[in-house]
Amino acid sequence: MEERKRIEVCFTPGEYEYFKGEYDIVVVIDVLRATSAICAAFDNGIKAIIPVATIEEAREYQKKGYLVGAERKGQIVEGFDFGNSPYSYMKEELRGQEVVLSTTNGTKALSIASDAPTVVVGALNNLDALAEWLAKQNKNILCLCSGWQDKFNLEDTICAGALCDQLIQTGNYTSTEDSSIAAKYLYISAWDNPLGFLKSSSHRRRLKNLNLNEDIKYCLTPNKTTVIPILKNGKLVKL
Amino acid sequence: MEERKRIEVCFTPGEYEYFKGEYDIVVVIDVLRATSAICAAFDNGIKAIIPVATIEEAREYQKKGYLVGAERKGQIVEGFDFGNSPYSYMKEELRGQEVVLSTTNGTKALSIASDAPTVVVGALNNLDALAEWLAKQNKNILCLCSGWQDKFNLEDTICAGALCDQLIQTGNYTSTEDSSIAAKYLYISAWDNPLGFLKSSSHRRRLKNLNLNEDIKYCLTPNKTTVIPILKNGKLVKL
Repeated sequence: MEERKRIEVCFTPGEYEYFKGEYDIVVVIDVLRATSAICAAFDNGIKAIIPVATIEEAREYQKKGYLVGAERKGQIVEGFDFGNSPYSYMKEELRGQEVVLSTTNGTKALSIASDAPTVVVGALNNLDALAEWLAKQNKNILCLCSGWQDKFNLEDTICAGALCDQLIQTGNYTSTEDSSIAAKYLYISAWDNPLGFLKSSSHRRRLKNLNLNEDIKYCLTPNKTTVIPILKNGKLVKL
Repeated sequence: MEERKRIEVCFTPGEYEYFKGEYDIVVVIDVLRATSAICAAFDNGIKAIIPVATIEEAREYQKKGYLVGAERKGQIVEGFDFGNSPYSYMKEELRGQEVVLSTTNGTKALSIASDAPTVVVGALNNLDALAEWLAKQNKNILCLCSGWQDKFNLEDTICAGALCDQLIQTGNYTSTEDSSIAAKYLYISAWDNPLGFLKSSSHRRRLKNLNLNEDIKYCLTPNKTTVIPILKNGKLVKL
């Protein structure tokens, strides 16, 4: 019997150093809201997204004439065109465009994962399509959760746990890290009612206070799209 | 109504920097096996344990004539008197003694937590006694899991989740971090059968391979003792 490939979960960008190098594919997850917004953008026909880690880099691109989104602590950074609400990326005028994005957690995770052979973007919004594609690759996979300001968060973990569960069910994948086992358990506890399960999550409370309830509902709805954004030469494009 | 105090969970020593400073009491947890062994030691009448982070510090104490335990990756370090098996600390000749201990994860966590106003040692072995004492303090509490080589582990998380659950049930405590909510859920999933739940945990597999099944059973048995080890001037003593 061929050895099963691994799918594992890293809870925060800060812990990535203890995982890196062992995985062929890294799935970057930031459910609330960067990777959900990125999926929405490609679903709406955006051509490419250039993720940048810092506001300074974002400003450099703005000077060059790019449309630039920048979010910190849940809010649009002053002087930028949009933040990371999925609804910002559904506008007609963005179709076919190349945009730049910098967010508190998600683009930071994309940046640190960029050394991996393959980097794709995961969210609840593209869950089944992504799981199906990953299952066909037969490679070692790491789900890198973006967390919240370097701390663990529930929504990214549950999304990662759902990917583990689907891939393990194919019979060709296994999870051996305790973080992956925990993520799968949390996903199973949460799945019947993710909005209910996450009602007490700290980030959801934070966004609710910012009147972002519609965004939350969007981001926590599985399988709104089948797009799989992939990092190619520093740009996210549709696979 | 008086504001409820918080009990939160930090999954790894590496993440402690994002929590530190906000808590009056830090509970250091390393179920397999350092904090379980420390509880066993005080239960057996050991007078004090000096936790040291490095093997070099351990050797310095050895030169001074101390009895010194040192463990790395599950095994006794060559040249030392014992490792971190709870059974090592049940010997008659250790009663009334002051011993030194350095372990892979647990004493490292004790070392980084030592700046907190109060540091106590938690394990499944002293769970109820510790929860009862913590509930009476009415202070903000952080459970610091030792993890395994800087990664998340299940057994420490479940122990921390059990403490959260017991303190929340008093009505005087709340948990707001996602890590604490996850720990509580994992504890609830695990509690009926902790040995079964943890059978797939990576550290348990590791220790099983080292023929440490008796240690595992001991460490995963709740409430074998009512001792609460506390850090005073760099030494652990019985509260």
